[in-house]
This record gives sequence, C-alpha cells and structure tokens, in this order.
Amino acid sequence: MKVNGTHYRTIWLADDGWSVEIIDQTRLPYDFEVIRLASLEDAAAAIRDMKVRGAPLIGATAAYGLCLALRRDDSSRALDRAVETLTATRPTAVNLHWALAEMVGAVSELAPADRVTAAYLRAARICNDDVEICRRIGEYGLEVIQDLHRQKGRGPLNLLTHCNAGWLATVDWGTALAPIYMAHDAGLDVHVWVDETRPRNQGFSLTAWELAAHGVPHTVIVDNVGGHLMQHGLVDACIVGTDRTTAAGDVANKIGTYLKALAAADNEVPFYVALPHPTIDWTIRDGIRDIPIEQRDPGEVISVAGRDSEGTVTSVAILDSRSPAANYAFDVTPARLVTALITDRGVCDASEEGLISLFPERATAT
Amino acid sequence: MKVNGTHYRTIWLADDGWSVEIIDQTRLPYDFEVIRLASLEDAAAAIRDMKVRGAPLIGATAAYGLCLALRRDDSSRALDRAVETLTATRPTAVNLHWALAEMVGAVSELAPADRVTAAYLRAARICNDDVEICRRIGEYGLEVIQDLHRQKGRGPLNLLTHCNAGWLATVDWGTALAPIYMAHDAGLDVHVWVDETRPRNQGFSLTAWELAAHGVPHTVIVDNVGGHLMQHGLVDACIVGTDRTTAAGDVANKIGTYLKALAAADNEVPFYVALPHPTIDWTIRDGIRDIPIEQRDPGEVISVAGRDSEGTVTSVAILDSRSPAANYAFDVTPARLVTALITDRGVCDASEEGLISLFPERATAT
Repeated sequence: MKVNGTHYRTIWLADDGWSVEIIDQTRLPYDFEVIRLASLEDAAAAIRDMKVRGAPLIGATAAYGLCLALRRDDSSRALDRAVETLTATRPTAVNLHWALAEMVGAVSELAPADRVTAAYLRAARICNDDVEICRRIGEYGLEVIQDLHRQKGRGPLNLLTHCNAGWLATVDWGTALAPIYMAHDAGLDVHVWVDETRPRNQGFSLTAWELAAHGVPHTVIVDNVGGHLMQHGLVDACIVGTDRTTAAGDVANKIGTYLKALAAADNEVPFYVALPHPTIDWTIRDGIRDIPIEQRDPGEVISVAGRDSEGTVTSVAILDSRSPAANYAFDVTPARLVTALITDRGVCDASEEGLISLFPERATAT
Repeated sequence: MKVNGTHYRTIWLADDGWSVEIIDQTRLPYDFEVIRLASLEDAAAAIRDMKVRGAPLIGATAAYGLCLALRRDDSSRALDRAVETLTATRPTAVNLHWALAEMVGAVSELAPADRVTAAYLRAARICNDDVEICRRIGEYGLEVIQDLHRQKGRGPLNLLTHCNAGWLATVDWGTALAPIYMAHDAGLDVHVWVDETRPRNQGFSLTAWELAAHGVPHTVIVDNVGGHLMQHGLVDACIVGTDRTTAAGDVANKIGTYLKALAAADNEVPFYVALPHPTIDWTIRDGIRDIPIEQRDPGEVISVAGRDSEGTVTSVAILDSRSPAANYAFDVTPARLVTALITDRGVCDASEEGLISLFPERATAT
C-alpha cells in the first residue's frame, strides 16, 4: 500500500537485483525506515528482532534469507545450516516452517549452480502468492462493504478493527484491512475505529500508522471503547483478522477480539473475520477447548514504549513492582458470534457447512 | 485500609488537631506520600491537581477545605469566597457541590465565632457517614462472596474488577472492593483480577496498589483479557463500582465495564455492581439514552505515564501524531446484564422493582 503517495510492499528486491529491503517495523509509528538485508544473518536478525512480523511476512523474509545464504554458498551443507538458523529465529511460527519447506523443496534436488536462481524465483512466488491471496480477500470483502454502504445510504461507513491485520503483517494489502483499502481506493466513504490492542499496542503503532500513510480516515480508541460506540450506532461493522480458524468456524485472534464480537452481537452489528485459507485448521472444531492460548512475558503488560518529550523512544514501567501480571496473547471467538468469514475463496457462514461450501475438497477430510 | 500493616483513611486530621492529611494519589503506585493541607488553597490545589480523586473523597476534602478557610477568616464573605474557590476546582463533580452545600448549611446561620467548631464537626460527619455507607456495602457484599465461596467449594474465589472502586476513591473501604477486603479479612481465600482500565490505568496505579498494600492476592491484566478468563472458568464473579445508577438499574461506570458485563453474561459468571445509594439517579430510567457520556482530552489516550529506567516518572507518546484519538470516559451497562446491585441498604435485583424493594420511599417518586 502507499506511504506518502509511494507504493510499497513490506519486502522487495533492492535495485541491485539480489539484496532485499524491508521496513523496520520496530521503528514504527515514529520513523519510516527502510533497511537492506544483504546476508542470511541480516534476514535472521530481522525476524528475530521483529523488524518484520506477521506470519506471511516472516515466511517471505525467511525465503529471501535462504536466497541470500545460497548466494554466498550454494552447497547442500550451507542450505541445511541456513534452514537451521532461520528456523531458530521464531520457533513457533508455522508460516516460517512452511516457507522454508517450500524453498528447500524448490532447490535441494537441483545442482548447486542452479540453486540461487531457483531460490529467488520461488521466494518471489511466495511473495506474489501472498499478495494474490490478500487481494482476493480484499475483493470479496469489498463486496461486503459495498452492500453495507448501500444499506446505510449516507455518511461514512464506520468500521472497527482490532490489532493489525493490515499490509504490514503480510506482503501487501493485509487481510482484514484489504477490503477497507479497496473500498477507500474505490472512493467509498469509510472511517476506521482502531483499537489500541494492549498490551503490544499494534493498533496504534501499526494499524493507525498504515491507515494514515495510505490516507484512510480513522480514529484511535482504547480497547474499552468499542462497546459504547456500538451501543450508540457509531460502528456499522467490525472486521478483524485471525491466526487460526477451526473447521467449525471458531476464530483465534488477538486477545480482546471476543469482547468486541460480544458487543457486536448485542447491538446487531455485523462481525466479519478475514482470513487466508492456509490458516484454517481442519483438524479441530471447538476453538475454546482445542486452541492453546500462549501466555507471553508479563513485561509486555508492565512496560509501555513511546516517545518522551525529547523525541527518544523509551520504555516506562506502569505498574508497582509488587503486583504480578498475566499476559494471555489470544482469545477465541466462537463461530456463533461471527457474521461471516471473508476468505480468498469467497465469503461464507462461520460454520462447517459454510467452510465446506467454499472448500468442497475438505468435505471428506473432516 | 492498611498500608504495610498500618491502617489509613484517605483523609484525616493531623496530630495538631486542625490541619488535614491526605495521600498524594498522583504519586501512586510509585510512592506513598502523605501531604498536609494547612489552608483553603492547599485543599483546592489537592482537588484540582487530582492528588485526591473519587467522588466521596473529593467531597470530604472540600469540606475540610472550608474548615481551613473559616479557621483563617470566619466571616460570611470569606465563607462565600471559599465555596467559590472550591467549586471551581472540579466544576462537574456532583459530590463536591453536595458536600459544600452541607457545610454551608451547617455554619452559615451561626455566629462567626461558632463556625469553625461546627465546620470541623460537620466535615468529620461527612467522612464518617461515607465510611459507614461503604462498610455496609462491604457487609452486604461479603454475604454474596461467602455464598459464592460455599458454592465453589474449593480453591480461591476469583473476582474480576474494573477501574478503581476501592478505598482510595472513598474515605475508607471503597465500594466494589469493600466486600473483597471484608472477605479477605475474614480469612476467605479470594484472588482479584485487576483490569488495567485504559486510558488512565486506574486499575494498575490505584486498585493493584491498594490491594497489594492491604495484602489481598491479585493479578493485573490488560482490559482485553477478562473475556478469555471467563471462557475458561477463571472468573467466579465480577464486582465493579458505578458513577450513576438509573431508577431501572442501568449503571454508568468507567469505559469498558459493559464489555466485561457481556462476557460475564455469555459465560454465566455473576456480575455485581456496588453502589452507595446517593449515586442512584431516580429521575432517569434508560441509561444508554439518558446518561450523557463525557468525552475527555485525547491526550489521555495518546500519552502514558510510567517510571523510566532511572526511576523518574515520565510521560511517553504512544501514537503517531497524524492519527486522531477519541476518549469516551464511561459506558452504560444495561440492567439485564447485572446480576444484582449491592447497596448500603442491601442487595437487590438490577430493576425498578429491586430498587424500590430497598428504597420504598421512592415508590411514589418514580
């Protein structure tokens, strides 16, 4: 999407045709800084230090990290070592493993001299495929937004989102934000309520930043506000992303999503979840029972980073040290609270029947 | 309640018998500092600078501010001026007006020489009456907690609260926290989940601090977490305070309360609201329609105060300056989501019938 009028992806080949450039997301929302990855070590550090984040973007960065490794040493031993190094950066990131397996599959059987070219081609395809998936989510979601806009008839369509499911988490477009960008670009009058998304504040630091950079009207709010807005007719629909969707349509997403879904249901506000089809977990049905919820470092709850009066980014402790903190990272929104799933294959009910209607090849597998 | 084993109220007469001591709440949770108010100006500044906050405590401080003014000059002119000065500190604080009217009523008809003594007596009664109201809420609420504890049968009883409705907001005991303190003091095994309560973080800076100071087990969480905890049986009941209750039992409280009430209803977790009877507004019924919601300075959303690595309390900006912020301060939880109201006259259904059963003198007035 655009940053001050110029189109960017979150990862791309530099002008030299071989090194890779990314946006240092740890500097957002304060500074927009593009950094160059010229080695396996650069790519591994970018993932480890969370300069890139979001499952698709982590996968794409790992893919290019392997290209950079092979460019220096195209032996099978170097390939194995590079996979090991990249895997260790974020051990629980499923998409990272998937991307590395794709890359290994594309190059391991080739003669060493042919590997670099094949690797760059495969890495580019991983990126392009992700953009295509997000573009399709955007197009299907755009139809949903157009319908809502027609029904409302006047004024801006107010959409609420939680966390960051935008282009910064993918290679371009994003998932939940893709339909919003398309609606805005198509000239529809949309306005986004952006949840802060404590404890890591991705709503403020990423979602608000990318909406502002692209020029989409928005207002930031703390996570407590959405229910009040919905009670007063100030939200026309919610659109969020998801990390994992069960075969029955339950969705795991950033902690707090469930509370917004409850408020949406209580006020008859439609609640949409946008997702690329690889995040559907066809092996489980009951999300609350079967999706383990990661507990992260309590330090994320206790400390907040921001810019001090001199412009320096600094962390402050907002809690007395005597009080323990718990930090649950995700929650599960049951399918009954989800109006529809917006996938790269179309829009469907958040139910087994709905999902099977879009993915009939899964009918026997479930 | 206790601070490191010593009992404190939030406001008291100093050993000299005339000056007034308070806890500087702006220094919490980092420093426990008692400051002395020796003049009208000291009292006005304490209210204006929010060294004291919470409706009952603001009223009590204003009452003593009038005592300090009369001690210097007991003329009617000085009395009028002092009322004017104190009223201007927090123009929208209803309890402040009420306390000043009480004080004026107690002294204005007296001979100037008799005013100081009468004023100190009335101020002490305002404080003692508030303590008594909170103590009764605590005792009625204790019965509720004892019942829940018996039903659960084992392990700690997990209670979730939002914002600060503790002794720091009143003269002692608090409202929502009064039953919890009584349960803890009675030896019941209770544990409190403390919501951060963005944007002003009263949960972390006040509730967690006072629970820690008194020794009540607790864990702090961001506002997004409560729904997940309730889905997994980790909350046995919610108890919150309220700023205003309608004649039909709707309750206005700190923004985000409604979201927790929805999660409680969705998971069959009882949701209690504790309130002193003067906060019931018998003139309105539909809280969502009739209670105006204050919008505060967006700066509260954008900036967070905490202690930096050198221990200095500092504010940091957590948002890119291009994004506008909205700051709704309260929301309304409809009576249908409230299991019961815990008042200083007893526990009742959150309904007109429930309230009238405790306040039969209001039956004709509604």
